[in-house]
Amino acid sequence: MKKYTEMDTSELREEYKKLSKQYKEFQYRSLSLDMSRGKPCPEQLDLSMGMMDVLNSNTDLVCEDGADCRNYGVLSGIPEAKELLADIMEVHPDNIIIYGNSSLNVMFDFISRSMTHGVMGSTPWSKLPEVKFICVVPGYDRHFAMTEYFGIKMINVPMLSTGPDMDMVEKLVSEDESIKGIWCVPKYSNPTGNSYDDETVRRFARLKPAAADFRIYWDNAYTIHHLYDHNQDHLIEILAECKRAGNPDLVYKFASTSKVSFPGSGIAACAASKNNLEDIMEQLKYQTIGHDKVNQLRHVRFFKDIHGVVEHMRRHADIIRPKFEEFENIFEEELGELGICSWTKPNGGYFISFDSMPGCAKNIAMKAKKAGVKLTPAGATFPYGKDPEDKNLRIAPTYPSLEEIREAAKLFSICVKLATIEKLLGEDTGK
Amino acid sequence: MKKYTEMDTSELREEYKKLSKQYKEFQYRSLSLDMSRGKPCPEQLDLSMGMMDVLNSNTDLVCEDGADCRNYGVLSGIPEAKELLADIMEVHPDNIIIYGNSSLNVMFDFISRSMTHGVMGSTPWSKLPEVKFICVVPGYDRHFAMTEYFGIKMINVPMLSTGPDMDMVEKLVSEDESIKGIWCVPKYSNPTGNSYDDETVRRFARLKPAAADFRIYWDNAYTIHHLYDHNQDHLIEILAECKRAGNPDLVYKFASTSKVSFPGSGIAACAASKNNLEDIMEQLKYQTIGHDKVNQLRHVRFFKDIHGVVEHMRRHADIIRPKFEEFENIFEEELGELGICSWTKPNGGYFISFDSMPGCAKNIAMKAKKAGVKLTPAGATFPYGKDPEDKNLRIAPTYPSLEEIREAAKLFSICVKLATIEKLLGEDTGK
Repeated sequence: MKKYTEMDTSELREEYKKLSKQYKEFQYRSLSLDMSRGKPCPEQLDLSMGMMDVLNSNTDLVCEDGADCRNYGVLSGIPEAKELLADIMEVHPDNIIIYGNSSLNVMFDFISRSMTHGVMGSTPWSKLPEVKFICVVPGYDRHFAMTEYFGIKMINVPMLSTGPDMDMVEKLVSEDESIKGIWCVPKYSNPTGNSYDDETVRRFARLKPAAADFRIYWDNAYTIHHLYDHNQDHLIEILAECKRAGNPDLVYKFASTSKVSFPGSGIAACAASKNNLEDIMEQLKYQTIGHDKVNQLRHVRFFKDIHGVVEHMRRHADIIRPKFEEFENIFEEELGELGICSWTKPNGGYFISFDSMPGCAKNIAMKAKKAGVKLTPAGATFPYGKDPEDKNLRIAPTYPSLEEIREAAKLFSICVKLATIEKLLGEDTGK
Repeated sequence: MKKYTEMDTSELREEYKKLSKQYKEFQYRSLSLDMSRGKPCPEQLDLSMGMMDVLNSNTDLVCEDGADCRNYGVLSGIPEAKELLADIMEVHPDNIIIYGNSSLNVMFDFISRSMTHGVMGSTPWSKLPEVKFICVVPGYDRHFAMTEYFGIKMINVPMLSTGPDMDMVEKLVSEDESIKGIWCVPKYSNPTGNSYDDETVRRFARLKPAAADFRIYWDNAYTIHHLYDHNQDHLIEILAECKRAGNPDLVYKFASTSKVSFPGSGIAACAASKNNLEDIMEQLKYQTIGHDKVNQLRHVRFFKDIHGVVEHMRRHADIIRPKFEEFENIFEEELGELGICSWTKPNGGYFISFDSMPGCAKNIAMKAKKAGVKLTPAGATFPYGKDPEDKNLRIAPTYPSLEEIREAAKLFSICVKLATIEKLLGEDTGK
């Protein structure tokens, strides 16, 4: 197939006419697919149903250190849950706090605490004239939304194939004391699906921020969420690297079992240095008497140990890998030779990131929606919902069935082609 | 027995000698009892073990409105959990948000949100020169601790037998715009165990606060925690009363199942007006994707409905009522005729409040501790841990066994007598 950029006007008009017909056919079939969020599909959730059986009315609900998990107390989590989450997060159990059901909530709390109480004795951010965060783009919309909620100014730094543009990051944090944090999804990044390389992690650990209360928000949401047994990304562990670099307090690391067991009914955790944990516990002791220890116990009794979790994640991968590959194959077939777009082929995580020609993303999402496929809104992967080039779209292939994925990928390809021709021809599509 | 205040010095010295011997005997027995917190005992927790059986790997985890409780979503709670908690809280399900495992955490969040974002559009409290809360004393130490954590100044208002001194409350809130809230445990109050009378609730609903962002923090922690089938306290429902009084937005009402099912693994809820809920949801949508719906479902499937909860609470009462009565009986026997102290005889809740002669509470707690019985620290029932008269002690009779309660009550009585005589004689106890 000829590249669109090499077609003349009449060829493009001809192509547009053909595509419009195909698009109409999709419209007649009134699909109703929601691919806007990274949600596990029912078959994935079925994998964890055994977790409902590990505790029953005859089960001993006492944890390793003798505490009755049914009663108050144990603020930072039961020991066996700390060990499990520590193994998932590749840190020591002493560096872990186990939280409730949502790591997003933990991150929100961390920003909120910094606003009202500062970080390890620093001025509360709410008392400062301006607070800024660096946002790696494209990135996770909920990170950006909560940052905006707190009135924190967001600065875009592009995500490269190696990770964030570290030249920019280093320059920004070393020069501007009002920059207090950076949002990172370092592994199987949301939405690009690629991971930070060793050099990037090393440079993160060696940052010299102007602000003593600057922290890296290392949201390791997809740390064990591989799609393949062998093509797995591996990152240098950031806490250890920060310690080696003489910056032990530079990072907060987050993870949860939301996409391991049940979203909303999993357990979340934060890993950090002793100094940071002390600072965090100083808030936590006023905030709650303790998180849900019965659910912590339920997770440990079900997964047993990190090996159990790894085996479990392999079963997740078997369900969702074909969906990613189906999308990639249809894109390759439909769009591969047109020279008008690119997409990522991640080894893990929950998303494919799609880049159209500049100025087409909103139009593509709108066309898809009108034919019954809801995508994450164009722009959502950028702070303030504003993609400066209007080209990035996040595709979440896990929830729909393989059959539905096929339909969605074909429709999506048609929408990409239509929007691109509209862009190339201006309004003059010959309609 | 002669009243201590009618004894002369030599009689008091004689009595002191006798008591010192009894106290030493207790010390030899090296008790180790913790009565510092309102914790359910293991037999109470056993009542809810059936909750571990209602969900298993063959159970349908779909809630009434068709949502899969295993997946993301449903920010404000599943409908059936709203109905159950609404019935417990005596409000309409539309006025409810279901939260995670701790109502304390919800209250913390509310203060935190008000600090960073204000209340329904008001100036964020962190931007104000001063913020104050009224604290009904004696009251709940964790309320006071979190208020102090946020740098909010606390003003004491005494708890009378009818509820807070409403003359003082009305005057304070109408005159001082920096007063933004009041902590209330209106039913079976922590620690006094008595409840606000109708007149008090009516006056609360009719408050005319100088600050538009003033809210009543109505922590209805013991709303269904009766000790008796017939001697039950009943309160006018505050949300409805505020609405009738033309002040629908004046109150936040909190409750949880912490002392119904499992502390730490229950579900919490907030009830408020539509306007307030809208304001609250504006934060919640950034804070989390949703709370633990599987645990919400587990609670509803176990308790079925409000009648199930009421029956369940009767079983709780059967376990703890004898402990309250044992304490009260031993106090009556040991201290009733001495004219040196008073204590409450609540119809519900988790505490007995004890008032010694002024200046004795710390000494009593210290003596009890030295003989192996840990009480809530003297002063803890007041803001900043400072009981101005040093006379109030909170007794938590639920956790120890009946046998242990007997020992503890006897020891406590001896400590009260010793500390009182020391007070009456100055240092001159004749030792």
